[in-house]
Amino acid sequence: MNDHVNDKPSVTVLGLGQMGAALAGALLAAGHPTTVWNRTPARAEPLAARGAVHAASVAEAVEASELVLVCVLDYAAVRELLAPVAGRLRGRVLVNLTTGSPEQARAEAEWAAEHGVGYLDGGIMTTPPGVGDPANMVLYSGDPELLAAHHDTLAVLGDPVGLGADPGLASLYDAGLLGLMWSVFGGWLHATALAGADGVAARDFTAVANRWLRTVAWFMTGYAEQIDAGVYPGDDATIDVQIAAIGHLLHASADRGVDTRLPELHLELMRAAAAAGHGGDSYARIIEEFRKK
Amino acid sequence: MNDHVNDKPSVTVLGLGQMGAALAGALLAAGHPTTVWNRTPARAEPLAARGAVHAASVAEAVEASELVLVCVLDYAAVRELLAPVAGRLRGRVLVNLTTGSPEQARAEAEWAAEHGVGYLDGGIMTTPPGVGDPANMVLYSGDPELLAAHHDTLAVLGDPVGLGADPGLASLYDAGLLGLMWSVFGGWLHATALAGADGVAARDFTAVANRWLRTVAWFMTGYAEQIDAGVYPGDDATIDVQIAAIGHLLHASADRGVDTRLPELHLELMRAAAAAGHGGDSYARIIEEFRKK
Repeated sequence: MNDHVNDKPSVTVLGLGQMGAALAGALLAAGHPTTVWNRTPARAEPLAARGAVHAASVAEAVEASELVLVCVLDYAAVRELLAPVAGRLRGRVLVNLTTGSPEQARAEAEWAAEHGVGYLDGGIMTTPPGVGDPANMVLYSGDPELLAAHHDTLAVLGDPVGLGADPGLASLYDAGLLGLMWSVFGGWLHATALAGADGVAARDFTAVANRWLRTVAWFMTGYAEQIDAGVYPGDDATIDVQIAAIGHLLHASADRGVDTRLPELHLELMRAAAAAGHGGDSYARIIEEFRKK
Repeated sequence: MNDHVNDKPSVTVLGLGQMGAALAGALLAAGHPTTVWNRTPARAEPLAARGAVHAASVAEAVEASELVLVCVLDYAAVRELLAPVAGRLRGRVLVNLTTGSPEQARAEAEWAAEHGVGYLDGGIMTTPPGVGDPANMVLYSGDPELLAAHHDTLAVLGDPVGLGADPGLASLYDAGLLGLMWSVFGGWLHATALAGADGVAARDFTAVANRWLRTVAWFMTGYAEQIDAGVYPGDDATIDVQIAAIGHLLHASADRGVDTRLPELHLELMRAAAAAGHGGDSYARIIEEFRKK
């Protein structure tokens, strides 16, 4: 038991892998009474040394706090851990920060509802060292009132971003955002290899690339409106114009021995849109190529 | 002739396609005496109505200003236009904003040097309506002293970003940055299609995606240092961890009938790096897959 005066809500953290330990560490650093449990007890020791209560069992850990965070390997591990203590979870709020699919998150929310447990599903959009930095997002889906009630505590982990009532959305956004990340990394590494072939340092190219991303983001904001409206005016930046422009990239890459599979795939998508009669539309029209089965 | 008092340098713009007309328009709006020429003279009329001098010939246009911008279809068109007036260009500064390859830019710079003409090669990182907005970059490569001398005038077109003395770099950066843009668009459209399948509006997903891009850019900055150093410590975000995570994206996409070619290509690159023994390294190591012939 923490015996100093503390009006911050207590929190329980189940699972002390790299991410779980980072969550508990951020809560301790912010002064929240924190109870921890891990299947391998040794992982709890450094946190206990920092003031965490090391619960002897999942049941004891669950009973220590109204807010129970769980971050383990997968959803099967979550269920295995919590099914035996469902009765003790009743009336509490379970925040599941384990990575999984939207379908798994929805099933877990149903299970929680059946047992009278409040449920939020979360996606931590950073690596463990980034936990606790308000510049990083933690996505939450599930009952917005639960998120509002625990917002200030959850804000200790990163900026809480509410995605609405469907509990599957945090997982879905998480997967989509990682996909965006791999695509950004891919385009950037391809371009960095290209510039590097002519002696440009990665640091120099990346400074310009990062600034360029702000312009690209500005296009995305406008294109999102087009997608929601289902109309894709090309104005001055049509798919046909991009098809003409990508030739320079392909040639410059081939000349330098830089792999062209990534720009070739983009060209393939553009050509399919043009073949479907949309060459005069904006790039946002390409979403239809992704929607195809 | 502009007959009002004006201490701003005069500028000549050769080529009045959408982009050339936007360049001349920005110069006029900023109060620069502006001389224009276009192969089809009618394109000059709206600019003449705004105060531009409409030159009757390329020779007359070139002689009107120390700074001569050219923005035409391709480098062959540039050479065809300027070869007959090389003598008149001597001692002036030619800023070539035509799109082409690094090799073409270097050849054009050589031609200019042979004729005693100052040369800058440029890449306009926006569409014509964005010309004149200081938030947008215009990349320049070639003699840094020439850029410094004309910086204030060129700043009227967009923020001038100097890339150094190699005249090919503006074209090379331009191609690479467009490649990055297509990759960002691709990853974003894929993810927007994914989220859209579960009822998420593109506008809502994109607001979160744009914020996420800032986190991704932060990773890129760190990874650029790794690339320059040639060492790729994985720390907590290894290629192996990404290979495990991308499964959720592939499954969620397949379940929703969303095309998986883009994440599959990323996975292919990751697996190749892992097969080469680099699974414990950071994602930046993937640059070696792009460097392969």
